[in-house]
Parts: sequence; structure tokens; C-alpha cells
Amino acid sequence: MWGMDEFDRYRAAMNEKLLGSGHLGIKRFFALDTQAYEDGALDKKTKELLGLVASTVLRCDDCITYHIKQCASVGVNRAEFLDAFNVALVVGGSITIPHLRRGIDRVDQLLESGVAKDQNLREPHEH
Amino acid sequence: MWGMDEFDRYRAAMNEKLLGSGHLGIKRFFALDTQAYEDGALDKKTKELLGLVASTVLRCDDCITYHIKQCASVGVNRAEFLDAFNVALVVGGSITIPHLRRGIDRVDQLLESGVAKDQNLREPHEH
Amino acid sequence: MWGMDEFDRYRAAMNEKLLGSGHLGIKRFFALDTQAYEDGALDKKTKELLGLVASTVLRCDDCITYHIKQCASVGVNRAEFLDAFNVALVVGGSITIPHLRRGIDRVDQLLESGVAKDQNLREPHEH
Amino acid sequence: MWGMDEFDRYRAAMNEKLLGSGHLGIKRFFALDTQAYEDGALDKKTKELLGLVASTVLRCDDCITYHIKQCASVGVNRAEFLDAFNVALVVGGSITIPHLRRGIDRVDQLLESGVAKDQNLREPHEH
Amino acid sequence: MWGMDEFDRYRAAMNEKLLGSGHLGIKRFFALDTQAYEDGALDKKTKELLGLVASTVLRCDDCITYHIKQCASVGVNRAEFLDAFNVALVVGGSITIPHLRRGIDRVDQLLESGVAKDQNLREPHEH
Amino acid sequence: MWGMDEFDRYRAAMNEKLLGSGHLGIKRFFALDTQAYEDGALDKKTKELLGLVASTVLRCDDCITYHIKQCASVGVNRAEFLDAFNVALVVGGSITIPHLRRGIDRVDQLLESGVAKDQNLREPHEH
Repeated sequence: MWGMDEFDRYRAAMNEKLLGSGHLGIKRFFALDTQAYEDGALDKKTKELLGLVASTVLRCDDCITYHIKQCASVGVNRAEFLDAFNVALVVGGSITIPHLRRGIDRVDQLLESGVAKDQNLREPHEH
Repeated sequence: MWGMDEFDRYRAAMNEKLLGSGHLGIKRFFALDTQAYEDGALDKKTKELLGLVASTVLRCDDCITYHIKQCASVGVNRAEFLDAFNVALVVGGSITIPHLRRGIDRVDQLLESGVAKDQNLREPHEH
Repeated sequence: MWGMDEFDRYRAAMNEKLLGSGHLGIKRFFALDTQAYEDGALDKKTKELLGLVASTVLRCDDCITYHIKQCASVGVNRAEFLDAFNVALVVGGSITIPHLRRGIDRVDQLLESGVAKDQNLREPHEH
Repeated sequence: MWGMDEFDRYRAAMNEKLLGSGHLGIKRFFALDTQAYEDGALDKKTKELLGLVASTVLRCDDCITYHIKQCASVGVNRAEFLDAFNVALVVGGSITIPHLRRGIDRVDQLLESGVAKDQNLREPHEH
Repeated sequence: MWGMDEFDRYRAAMNEKLLGSGHLGIKRFFALDTQAYEDGALDKKTKELLGLVASTVLRCDDCITYHIKQCASVGVNRAEFLDAFNVALVVGGSITIPHLRRGIDRVDQLLESGVAKDQNLREPHEH
Repeated sequence: MWGMDEFDRYRAAMNEKLLGSGHLGIKRFFALDTQAYEDGALDKKTKELLGLVASTVLRCDDCITYHIKQCASVGVNRAEFLDAFNVALVVGGSITIPHLRRGIDRVDQLLESGVAKDQNLREPHEH
């Protein structure tokens, strides 16, 4: 599994390629994606948890990593991560387990680095 | 699309067949499923929303119907349903739209019937 | 399986509910969805075929029905539909067969009704 | 849910459309599909159970119905069906439960009709 | 692709994190997962083959690796693996082919190492 | 992410294992897979784009890489790739974004290497 920094760099470079291509549809989709997690009728924390569980049952490691970072940045704690993982596990079945293993690894990397709650991720929201 | 009552009756009858079969694994899974949505580190409302969005991106109408009922019973309102649908739509794409159509139909049936918030669904949690 | 008219009416009524809700994210997604199939670097016919095959491997009958109508409206003929179905079948496997059965049924309903090529579907693009 | 006879009639009529179209790729795929479940290194009973569980985790009711009929025709009994359903449930999660409900319904229709074991399904294998 | 030992070590370490977290739901799910493959109405060999095919059509490499090991430990031979892969390929389509490539690689690593049949995997069943 | 040469070598070696195994079903499936993308009612370019979008919404990086190579070999240009990616993104949602990132990376590697249009890929079609 890639380190978090490596993941961030590759994501940023390729997002730039996609967004820099001038394709209006792709650009607008990325904007919609960012907006979907902003405070609204539901708050950002709930929405990021929704994004995390959706990513887990659809089994996309990069999306899971992204939403774990976002969740941590708005104060989701370890017990809450585990509760969200458990819903994903029950809905999505044992096929999600390898993603939970990599997920808890990411969670602990973030929580141990201490940056979690304090870090204010200002970058646009793109998986 | 089936009416809600018809849906409930069929679900109850077939769950009885599955649980009445004496298969311990299936029985225990149903218990785990119920427990996954109880108050814990995350509260029941958040967990039911997680179940709703997971069901929507995995595109299962019966599961969506079930979680809409549960969400309504713990006070999720129309704007919150739409916000949750929007996260599912962005994560899961246009392929989820037919499910959102049937979902909003269910939501409005429930909200218009007035039972939503008051109804205390005590039945065990089985999709 | 619903008749085509029944399908159209339900879709229209529920899309109105979703779009009439005032949720900006959902409204913008529907606009992006319409635009994705307009002539661009690839022409509309190719894009509708892409939409049809994507819907088939993801196994969504309503989306398949929608794209079959769109494809027919831009002149996709029966042999081309079968070629597209075959790609979906090979990529997606036998699990797509029930959708191909309902798909060919829809195709023949449309082609036999004679409206296919002449019909100019001006309604916004929503699955 | 359609009755079994209705299901069989629609399936037969539409398979005829697909196979009668003269598309060689589709025709050959259907042949491969039939052959995949014949006795080989694994016997037909095991392979039909594999087809049933694969169809259940991929959540296709028509495919499930088809493989239940095939399984019943080679003597799979109720306890074995439940054991196979349980594997599908654990791997695929609660999202499979609505399909298990319809599955056990089909199983009991077949077993109660008494035709199960005796019926020799000679028709070609097409989901 | 990771070597088998590396895979085993990471799996063990992260399962410990998940199970050591004290989350009862996750712990019980892991227990259910182990029990689902024990001898019952269907024997362990058949159930592990069901797990393998389910994992293949759902396209999870780690789950495939896990079930290949389990299958090999109860005596599944190369021809049987290929027959199971073929069912997965027909049901799930060409999208499963990259997983079959990695699968046959794993199978041959195990069979060539000679440990296959003799090895008695006593560790709890967790993908 | 593997380099393209490494990808090609592993694919070739493992396809040889699968095809060399003598399993007739697998061998025939690979043949069907190759034939599905040959000129017919739809031309090869359209079919490879269908394969690319199907692979993207089903989220298989190896299949995406394969179809990008095939598309490039029949002259699909960068703007057409982006248009196809956009259809996949709208149908399949943000969960496809990590695959689009790796996809555009592959596209640019191929286009920059200059081999794209000239290269005549004669090898049999296997994902």
C-alpha cells in the first residue's frame, strides 16, 4: 500500500491532468463532488461518514483513504470510524474486509500522526 | 412498484421462512444486522443514513425502502433525505437515479402519511 | 415489465419531484448527465451507445430502457444494438443476460412502432 | 414477483429473439454458458451451486431463479440451499437479503411442487 | 503482487487491529465468517469453492487469495480450480480475467510449494 | 502502478498459464472476447470505446489499461478519451475517479511515446 504522501502527490498530479484538460463536464463533476460534502441539511461530518461508507461498500481504497482523511479533519474518532466500518461490513459483507484492514491502518496512521483534528484540509474535494 | 404494506407483508413472511429454517448462520447474521444500527459511538440516526446511502450506491430498492422507513422513524426530514440522496448520486453516479426516483416516492408516501416521526418501529431490523 | 408509456410517466413525475425539491446538487447533476451525451469530441450516437453498454454491465433496466430510446432516436439499428449488447455480454458475463432479454424486447417494441429514427426526443436527459 | 411459469415463458421467448438474431458472438456465449455447468473436474451439482452463489452475490433474481431450478433438478435439498445462501449472505452482506427472501420463496415453490428432483431439465442453459 | 507471506503478515496484523478494537459487531462478523465455511449440509470443500467463486465475480484479489489457500488445504486440485474459475468467468465476464491471471499464479505457487494438501490451516477464517 | 511493459509481460505469462491449461471453456471465452471487438455492425473503434467505458464503470484498472492501448492503436485521440471518461464518470460516479486518474496517466504515457496510432497490436485480445 502506498504511503499517504505518495497517494496525495499522485492524486494531485493526475487531478491536474484531468482538470487541466479543459473538459467542462469533468471539471463540473469535480465541483459537484466537492459541494456534496459541504454543510447543508446534513453537516459535513455526517456527509463525510456517508462518503466513507459508500466508498467502503463499493470497495475503492483510494476513495476510502480520501474520506478517512476528511473524516479525521472534522474530528471523527476511532470508535466512530469502527462503527461506520461495521455498518459497511454488515451491508457489504466479508468482501469489504480487506478494505477495512487497509482502512484501519490508514486511520491509525492519521490518528497517531496527531494531525488529524487540527489539520484543515482546504484543497478541493476530489477522491 | 409494490405498495409499502405489500412490501412489509412479503418481507415479514419470507424473513420468517429464513429464520424459521433453523440455520444458525443466517439467524446470527440477522441479529448482527439489527445491532449494527443501534446507538453506539455513532447514533442510530447517523447509522440509518449510512445504511440508506450504502443501499443506494449498491442499488437495492428493498434495502432503500427499509432504511427510508427507519430514517423516517427517527426523524430524518425531507431536506436531509435529499442531502443523503445527493451524496449517493455523486458517489454512485447516474446509475442510481432510478433508485432515487423510487426513493423520493417512498419518502413522500411516508411523510404524507404523517406516521413518520411518531411511528416507533419495534420490529427487528431485517432488510 | 412496465410498458414504455408507464415507464415514461413515472420517470417524468419522479424527476419532477427530485428537481422540484430545490436541491442544487441534484439539479446540477441532472444537467451534467444531459450534457454528457451531447455531440463533442465523440458524437451523440457513440456516446449513447457508451451509455447503453455502461448501463448494461451495471445492470440497470431503467437506464438501459432510457439509452435504448435515445439510441433509437439517433438511428442505431438492430444489428448495432446486438453488437453493443454483445460487448456488454462479454465484459459483464452471463449475469447481464436477463437485461439483454428485456433490452431486445424494448428494442423491438421501439423499432416495430416505427417511431424510432423519426422521433426527436427533446426532453432533458435523465435516466 | 412473477410466477415460475411466466418467468419461463418470457425467458424462452426473449432467448429466441437473441439467438434468432443471427449474432454469432451472442450465440456462442450462450453455448459456453450451458457448457460451464456440465460435469467436469467438478460435478454439475457443485457447479450449479457455484452459479447460484455467484448470482446471489451479484444480486440477479432471474439468475438466482434459474440456478435454483437447476440445483433442484440435480437433487440439492433445502438444507443445502440454506447453506449456500448463508455463504452468499456472509460474502455479499445484508444487501443480498431481499434476494434470499425471494430465493427461499422459489425454493419452497419448487420443493412443494414435488417436481424438483424428478424433473429433468433438458432445455439449454441460459439464465 | 505481494508475495503470499507478505500478504499473510499484513492480514494478520490488521485483523488484530480490527478484532483488538473491542467492537463487538466486527468481532461477531468475523466469527460468522469463519463458521460459514465449516462442514454442514454442504461440506467444507464445496463451501470454500463457493467462497472462491463469489470472491472472483465480486473481484477481490485478497479474498481470492484467501479462498485459494483454503481450497488447496482441503485438496482442491488444479483442474477443479480451473473449472471453478471458468464458472466465475462465464457468470462475471471478461472483467474477471485479470483476477483469474493472479488467481492461477497463486494456485501454482501453492501447488508447487507442495504444502497445499498437507497444510492444516488452523487460523480463524478471515478474508 | 506498474509500468506498461511490466503489465504486458505479466499478462502474457499468466494468459499462457490459463490458455495452456487445456480448459476448453476458458479457451473459448478468450476467443469470444477477442472477436467481440472486431469490425462488425459497429466498427472496432466504437467497440473499443465501449470496452473502455464498460471497464471504467466496473472499475478494473487492468481492463482499462488494455482498452486504452487498443483505442490508441485505432486512433482514438486525447479529446475522445476524455469524452469517453466523462460518460463513465457521469454513469459510474465519483467512485470511478481514481481509475480516471490512472487512465489519463496511461493515455499520456501512450500518446507521448508516439507509438499510439502507428502501433498495430496483433496479439489476441485478452484483458
